[in-house]
Amino acid sequence: MTGFGPEHLPYGVFRRAGEEPRVGARLGDGILDLAALAADGPLEEDPLLFFQPSLNAFMGAGRETWRRVREALRALTAGPDAEPATIPLDEAQLLLPIAVGDYVDFYSSLDHAINVGRIFRPDAEPLAPNWRHMPIGYHGRSGTIVVSGTPIRRPRGQRREPGDDAPVYGPSVRLDIELELGFVVGTPSAHGEAVAVDRALDHVFGVLLVNDWSARDLQAWESRPLGPFLAKSFATSVAAWVTPLDAILDCRVRAPAQEPAPLEYLREEPWAFDLDLEVEIDGSTVSHPNARHLYWSAAQQLAHMTVNGASLHTGDLFASGTISGPAREERGSLLELSWNGAEPVALGDGSTRAFLEDGDEVVLRGRGGDVALGEVRGRIEAAR
Amino acid sequence: MTGFGPEHLPYGVFRRAGEEPRVGARLGDGILDLAALAADGPLEEDPLLFFQPSLNAFMGAGRETWRRVREALRALTAGPDAEPATIPLDEAQLLLPIAVGDYVDFYSSLDHAINVGRIFRPDAEPLAPNWRHMPIGYHGRSGTIVVSGTPIRRPRGQRREPGDDAPVYGPSVRLDIELELGFVVGTPSAHGEAVAVDRALDHVFGVLLVNDWSARDLQAWESRPLGPFLAKSFATSVAAWVTPLDAILDCRVRAPAQEPAPLEYLREEPWAFDLDLEVEIDGSTVSHPNARHLYWSAAQQLAHMTVNGASLHTGDLFASGTISGPAREERGSLLELSWNGAEPVALGDGSTRAFLEDGDEVVLRGRGGDVALGEVRGRIEAAR
Repeated sequence: MTGFGPEHLPYGVFRRAGEEPRVGARLGDGILDLAALAADGPLEEDPLLFFQPSLNAFMGAGRETWRRVREALRALTAGPDAEPATIPLDEAQLLLPIAVGDYVDFYSSLDHAINVGRIFRPDAEPLAPNWRHMPIGYHGRSGTIVVSGTPIRRPRGQRREPGDDAPVYGPSVRLDIELELGFVVGTPSAHGEAVAVDRALDHVFGVLLVNDWSARDLQAWESRPLGPFLAKSFATSVAAWVTPLDAILDCRVRAPAQEPAPLEYLREEPWAFDLDLEVEIDGSTVSHPNARHLYWSAAQQLAHMTVNGASLHTGDLFASGTISGPAREERGSLLELSWNGAEPVALGDGSTRAFLEDGDEVVLRGRGGDVALGEVRGRIEAAR
Repeated sequence: MTGFGPEHLPYGVFRRAGEEPRVGARLGDGILDLAALAADGPLEEDPLLFFQPSLNAFMGAGRETWRRVREALRALTAGPDAEPATIPLDEAQLLLPIAVGDYVDFYSSLDHAINVGRIFRPDAEPLAPNWRHMPIGYHGRSGTIVVSGTPIRRPRGQRREPGDDAPVYGPSVRLDIELELGFVVGTPSAHGEAVAVDRALDHVFGVLLVNDWSARDLQAWESRPLGPFLAKSFATSVAAWVTPLDAILDCRVRAPAQEPAPLEYLREEPWAFDLDLEVEIDGSTVSHPNARHLYWSAAQQLAHMTVNGASLHTGDLFASGTISGPAREERGSLLELSWNGAEPVALGDGSTRAFLEDGDEVVLRGRGGDVALGEVRGRIEAAR
């Protein structure tokens, strides 16, 4: 079970040496060239949907097109006599799959929010009063979203050491990961109109893993009163492969009732994605959360994001926020895993990590049933 | 003095009935059709820079191109025998001039930050400890930026009434304006590299007025701990005309020394733009701040935004945050003008405003020397 069989078929953008980028679908260790399949006939679609540097043209074509293409690709790949031609993965460069419009990052894991509250405000109620009433979120930087494999340079910035009045400037000394599940908007919505929670998933093209790199020292100093800014904006890594929503709908499970009941515009039967996730640092698994622990669903996030009339555009990305479970080994950030550095995490080579060191390579993985989400890989480079 | 003479020549995008959008430059009450001028010869540039639905292709061509075009247009329009053909403004629809990449909103007015602190935390130090050390900012929503004249629908959302535990849902009852100066990025920067403060303006194509509409009731409830989200994301209005940076460089004036001295990467000779600004509601001028009161300069904002290695892209927009001066009649938001509703503002028709009412039309204007910034106009529509 590779996780990339005919029941999955995630989409990405690839480039072979000397050629223009094209849209492909992953099958095993190869890539189906959708541009060639459309140009040559087996895929009866406009080839211009796939001779593209991003998935946006295909995503903007709408749900009926997505369904038709997926059915055609399954027919081409799943039959007993199917012998589809693929391009070996190692013959292609994988590019950022989407031209990102707006990027919104939520804060939808109850365990994560409670952990953060306990770490930074140990004597106070860990959750803010609004947390159980709405999916808290903020806008991140779209222009620094990079594809898996892109090196991550340690950011510089201001931090304030404990006991000091004035800040110092230099490389972040508390560089962290955030394991998240991202949702890609395919179908836009009209400006001024809210999307109902029970229609929200109609707008979602697919999902992908996200590593929302975070400089905790910069974040602590800059965030008052307008929230995180440079602590997050230096880079966000996403997978090269976008899993079609239809490929993981079977992973949906019932979730516990939300208390208090949300306002009407957020109300639905509670559900979550049962996806096993993993954080690996330098070859050692340091955490394995499951996405079923998320409190707010993707549908609630999208409904909330548009309830004020804000429009959606093809290519918009919204992410869950760090996914943590109730157990220590289910925490989705080093901030939580090391309890802000107090309890460093052991790696297989005998070393420990409070936060990331230069040279560290982080890999995020995820799996639901026969579907393996595309990994997100990134190695830390020293600050310039 | 119209403010739109040959010394100004701001750029915008217009469309005549039945035609595709084109880039133009405003001259008086008319539009120079840059696409036609380039196609027909008087402007020796690639016409494809101007047969465009946004300024981005032109902005991405770089500073040398901007200078060459501006000099050519001045030669065509400024001489004693100049009789350039223009399209009357009322024969064209003005479109959003830029395809916005990332939108960052700063909080750079000292008087505004102090007023907000005094209103919401009357017993505490009004400024957060970080405020004088860096230009505080956050990312806003790019996909809901609209051109002047676009109606603004009152947003719905959650707010919590004083004394209540749970929120209520409905139309915002504290809808506000924010008068800001926006800066448009023309020249991109490399990911991973900071832009030095003394090179920052090299990346700026031009400036324009911004109205960052704000729902104060939504904002108060949602902002902890990640900052404003839906309170701002429903709409942001910008002028139809982008004033070239070169047209207002003469408006730069010395500013008071910053105390404490900023960290090295933010250090420069203090300066600001001497631009007279105006907020009009239903025909009554309610405020007239000046941009020279901004504490952090556009160059410092840009240097800070990239100090962590975040890249700039053509079309990125960053704005000053609400511009207020020290006097009451220089406050750039109704929150401040009415002191959170306690002292409603009188309009010329005898009515008063604590916050905006349905049907209100807000116009922002600005002027420096012979240059009039393009106005930003918006009328409030009732919530759906």
